[in-house]
Amino acid sequence: MARITFIGLGIMGAPMARHLKMAGHQMTVYNRSRSKAELWAKAHDGTVAQSPADAAKDADVVIACVGTDDDLASITLGRDGAFAAMAKGATFIDHTTVSARIARQLAVEAKSRGLFCVDAPVSGGQAGAENGTLSIMCGGGGEAMAMAEPVMQAYAKRIVHVGGPGAGQTAKMVNQIAIAGILQGLSEALHFAQCAEVDLDKVFEAISGGAAQSWQMDNRWQTMARGEFDFGFAVDWMRKDLGLALDEARANGASIPCAAQADQYYSDVQYMGGGRQDTSALIRRLPKR
Amino acid sequence: MARITFIGLGIMGAPMARHLKMAGHQMTVYNRSRSKAELWAKAHDGTVAQSPADAAKDADVVIACVGTDDDLASITLGRDGAFAAMAKGATFIDHTTVSARIARQLAVEAKSRGLFCVDAPVSGGQAGAENGTLSIMCGGGGEAMAMAEPVMQAYAKRIVHVGGPGAGQTAKMVNQIAIAGILQGLSEALHFAQCAEVDLDKVFEAISGGAAQSWQMDNRWQTMARGEFDFGFAVDWMRKDLGLALDEARANGASIPCAAQADQYYSDVQYMGGGRQDTSALIRRLPKR
Repeated sequence: MARITFIGLGIMGAPMARHLKMAGHQMTVYNRSRSKAELWAKAHDGTVAQSPADAAKDADVVIACVGTDDDLASITLGRDGAFAAMAKGATFIDHTTVSARIARQLAVEAKSRGLFCVDAPVSGGQAGAENGTLSIMCGGGGEAMAMAEPVMQAYAKRIVHVGGPGAGQTAKMVNQIAIAGILQGLSEALHFAQCAEVDLDKVFEAISGGAAQSWQMDNRWQTMARGEFDFGFAVDWMRKDLGLALDEARANGASIPCAAQADQYYSDVQYMGGGRQDTSALIRRLPKR
Repeated sequence: MARITFIGLGIMGAPMARHLKMAGHQMTVYNRSRSKAELWAKAHDGTVAQSPADAAKDADVVIACVGTDDDLASITLGRDGAFAAMAKGATFIDHTTVSARIARQLAVEAKSRGLFCVDAPVSGGQAGAENGTLSIMCGGGGEAMAMAEPVMQAYAKRIVHVGGPGAGQTAKMVNQIAIAGILQGLSEALHFAQCAEVDLDKVFEAISGGAAQSWQMDNRWQTMARGEFDFGFAVDWMRKDLGLALDEARANGASIPCAAQADQYYSDVQYMGGGRQDTSALIRRLPKR
């Protein structure tokens, strides 16, 4: 069993760290709001650190699950950041959804310090973190993956090594671009059915299981029709992710007009007070007419 | 067993009529290009009619699977059309994807003549017709459905009575609107992954089975990546269907911007020579950059 440091005990990080504790690892935790770290440590017999550096100095593995590129840069390379404190041969795993650019930058910094580094954004949401059934998309070298994979098994149902540094982040963007199209299409389809005043149960019974089938249709059309959005993956985070994808597309030359449009529509949903609601709240822009 | 007339022996109609013959019905067929009707009748021991009226005059059930609103109006209400020739109490089933408006108009005309009428567009494509596993979305009255359903069982795996006249056509539009969003999102996602130069097998392994899952992703991402489009549901027909949905949305007030955009993108694909290719050819607009 390893000495593991977990940085970022939000709704995703806290249950992931709990699974690591349950797997028998020795846990040290750090959180920007110290109270969350203390609460977690008290509940799970962990050690609270004063800073990312303090948290990282004796760790075999340092795991981050924070918010943004800036947050990640701060806890790794900033003042009292983890990287300078980590021992040679230690492994850094980043579960934050960030730009592929910073993922590649951290991989370079890690290598120069003799550290292993994996960018490993997740999907599966809060439920996946709680149940230990996340899907993890990984970017990094083979040795780094070999170090990280057994640790991540504690909370994953699927771990895919997509490619070199940044490839995990790229895969997450591909995921979100596909979802943006699906949810805009599903929103328009449901809205159209409502405007046409047909029986929604019958319509979706008729079209489910065919070429229009999607996880989102299977799991969300009914909650969308009922106006229930207080669960799932938040619009605010979807906007962050689509922003990352749009930045990356500007760099790699890809044209993603539907994702760009959905990003703007999500801005409407935020303005309507839906920032913390599930991404399926996209249909709130389209009430029955 | 019934006396059934089948009008329109295209790639969908011909195998549907064959399933009816196999079910033991007495078949009369009509096709605008007479040679197709003769070919079918020779192969399946059917009778070739001179006109829709000639085809319909002794039928218990008249089934149409033609191309457009105009085609349908012509074979039902036009000169030598079926409706004037049909006996009271006979049933008309329309499998053409047409406007909800003409479906409602035919229902009114049928009622005034003592006929039963069901609008019954299908999904499942040529393979579904060949294998007798179509999904059928139906609009019409309860009595009409009771007459039509046992007949349609010959080539359906699922028959849903969505609602009154036109409701079957509306459900088909809902289906196509959802597919337009899914395919545009999937095209952008795959294109983005290609531009980012990540391993496509790994990326789709990582994101499949999660919130981005769709029938289209499961069945089309690999053929899209390989540039294989010579199968499936044709772009030309998708444009027709999206045109029907856009017309209907203009009438019922729905806002379907992604479907409208996809319709324009499909126009590009037609211009690139892809009119007869599968709808997944949408990605042809987005070659790797």
